[in-house]
Amino acid sequence: MNKIQLEKLIIQSKKSAPLIAHLPTKTKNKVLVEMAKTLRKNFKKILLANSYDIKFAEKKGLSCAFIDRLLLNKKRIEEMAKALENVARLPDPVGVLVSSWKRPNGLKISKMRIPLGVIGIVYEARPNVTVDAAGLCFKSGNVVVLRGGSEAFHSNQTLVALLQKVLIKNKLPVSAITFIPTPERKILIDMLQLSHLIDLIIPRGGEGLMRFMEKHSKIPVIKHDKGVCTIFVDESALISKAIRIIENAKVQRPGVCNAVENILVHQKIAKKFLPLLKSIFAKQKVELRGDSLACKIIPGIKKATEKDWSTEYLDLILSVHVVKNIAEAISFIRKYGSLHTEAILTSSKKNADLFITGLDSSCILVNASTRFNDGGQLGLGAEVGISTTKLHAFGPMGLNELTTTKFVVRGNGQVRK
Amino acid sequence: MNKIQLEKLIIQSKKSAPLIAHLPTKTKNKVLVEMAKTLRKNFKKILLANSYDIKFAEKKGLSCAFIDRLLLNKKRIEEMAKALENVARLPDPVGVLVSSWKRPNGLKISKMRIPLGVIGIVYEARPNVTVDAAGLCFKSGNVVVLRGGSEAFHSNQTLVALLQKVLIKNKLPVSAITFIPTPERKILIDMLQLSHLIDLIIPRGGEGLMRFMEKHSKIPVIKHDKGVCTIFVDESALISKAIRIIENAKVQRPGVCNAVENILVHQKIAKKFLPLLKSIFAKQKVELRGDSLACKIIPGIKKATEKDWSTEYLDLILSVHVVKNIAEAISFIRKYGSLHTEAILTSSKKNADLFITGLDSSCILVNASTRFNDGGQLGLGAEVGISTTKLHAFGPMGLNELTTTKFVVRGNGQVRK
Repeated sequence: MNKIQLEKLIIQSKKSAPLIAHLPTKTKNKVLVEMAKTLRKNFKKILLANSYDIKFAEKKGLSCAFIDRLLLNKKRIEEMAKALENVARLPDPVGVLVSSWKRPNGLKISKMRIPLGVIGIVYEARPNVTVDAAGLCFKSGNVVVLRGGSEAFHSNQTLVALLQKVLIKNKLPVSAITFIPTPERKILIDMLQLSHLIDLIIPRGGEGLMRFMEKHSKIPVIKHDKGVCTIFVDESALISKAIRIIENAKVQRPGVCNAVENILVHQKIAKKFLPLLKSIFAKQKVELRGDSLACKIIPGIKKATEKDWSTEYLDLILSVHVVKNIAEAISFIRKYGSLHTEAILTSSKKNADLFITGLDSSCILVNASTRFNDGGQLGLGAEVGISTTKLHAFGPMGLNELTTTKFVVRGNGQVRK
Repeated sequence: MNKIQLEKLIIQSKKSAPLIAHLPTKTKNKVLVEMAKTLRKNFKKILLANSYDIKFAEKKGLSCAFIDRLLLNKKRIEEMAKALENVARLPDPVGVLVSSWKRPNGLKISKMRIPLGVIGIVYEARPNVTVDAAGLCFKSGNVVVLRGGSEAFHSNQTLVALLQKVLIKNKLPVSAITFIPTPERKILIDMLQLSHLIDLIIPRGGEGLMRFMEKHSKIPVIKHDKGVCTIFVDESALISKAIRIIENAKVQRPGVCNAVENILVHQKIAKKFLPLLKSIFAKQKVELRGDSLACKIIPGIKKATEKDWSTEYLDLILSVHVVKNIAEAISFIRKYGSLHTEAILTSSKKNADLFITGLDSSCILVNASTRFNDGGQLGLGAEVGISTTKLHAFGPMGLNELTTTKFVVRGNGQVRK
């Protein structure tokens, strides 16, 4: 596929946008449920396509973690199907009035939710993103252009073909879910120039991909970047709860962006708290790295370097820093954090409020695990990812975050003075 | 100023961001009122600086319209001062809870408004943008980096120096309102690379500037692009009201983005309506351009070319097209419009609703002038401009649109299962 062919393809996406934007909710839900059924019915076809990708990845010598993200099985296909059914059950954001008011001259103003138009999703290994993103974009009235990683090419192509089959059956344009059929990076650069056709790009992946998008995109980008998440254990924290929360935040799923990477401990409880943390994490095989004071209190752990404090380990490693007070904790997070997720464990309402107002990360938690910064967990129903771009979607992006609003003004002949 | 000096300057802006983000509302309002006073007191200084810019513009042979936009006088300085006082009176968006809910596991979730951080404003001739943008950004807790056009350089520099004097008096960092002291385009390109320091760029100006931003910016851009605004006169429109609204939309201030450029007339009333329009606009010296049917009904007007339908005249010119029905009107606007402002004049509730749901421009009006798509007129209090980027600010951007939200989660020890 060359640049001209790509543009032709995305012109079709743009052409479908008004139709998809104004589909009745019932039609959208029916299509989503049928898509779920089709995935279940064709699981063998999907597994076959996935096996090509897996073979290729093994040949290329990609890591076990990578191959695990790439791998599909019957259970994972069932999860994709269920996700589509969940999205079908969520309320339709399109046409909802966000707010309404009246002006002194009698004009009735309201803000109405509308789809963004054409959304490009650029992602890496996980084939489930294909289905999740397609479902969320479709339900929110958007046309989606999918550009997955080359490693998942066969899986993605098969998944999209199945979803498109349902579109055709329902007399809808296949371009509502467009797939870029060439896995080369060159064609991605071409795609990022089409600002007259694509309204928004959502990249999901590692730092390399984010820098690449920033460099090449002429289209607005809402990044889904790394999470260097920190938990601050205040002097009034309940120790047993704190240990349980930190354990959950680090161990329950260490390879994800809302897992904790740094622990800050108030100096007044460090001597009591750190040995407990060490003994719990020794059992869990979590490697601790500490500043000099932490290393003194719990000898035998590795010294943390300056680089550690801003590293997203995505692994069973945790850095520990002892702080004088909450002000130092806030400064530390401002300096090293990535604006993703931070938590304070405290019994002090005052310090909780200080922490909440002092930090502007996408999610600030009090006495709860960082793992809750997730669309499903926060009650958004589903998410396309977690925005780290401080635009009007910051944090988990659900259906509402895939829309914008237009002003609707109803008058009876008003003119401007 | 070179690239390294620029980066040093903007590092200072970024450093001030947390302080400005958390200023008490009272402090912000006090500073804004003092800034208004300072502008009034120093009007002679401002006029002197402005006279340099005007002399230079005249020497360069710039157009009268351009020089008019550039020109300051006592009345315009008073308007700038009043705008600051207005912004002081508006409610502070920072810290406001947009919504709150509870999860089955007891977590209390809310979304809290926070500033975006550092906002770069890139604009052209009008010096009042300096004061308006600085005031709105300051009130919404943002640090602003101002990069005005070279033609207004002396005026802008003097205005910023006066605003900064008030910051110093109140022991606030001058970098809260940063001014790029070099009017070259090269330094603008350097500025647009600083995605680690600037959160958002808002350009205000012509199409050339918009394309430039798209090409060079690594920072998210919310464009304030042209308005090719259309009014559709439905068959059930009240003729006298329709004439009054169109006259207002074209003539009241033809040089602005929400002035009307295209009129679509339902074929059933064209013969009655167009001669009236012609006679009114002959008095107002508005040039009409029409499709073949319009030219037949009102002979003597110029034939519109394909290019006319998508042209923002910013002048006393209006294109007229006769359409079969509302569906054709909607298709026409989708094809030629710029997603800015569209209006329908009708007595039919059904057609009003069809028009509202059929078009996703930033503002859709029923029986009112397009000139109402303006932050002040819609009740937002003030605006930094009208976004034509379909992000989470679409249409007039007031204080709320200069913020984003973070999730705040309050728990009592919850961990994720």
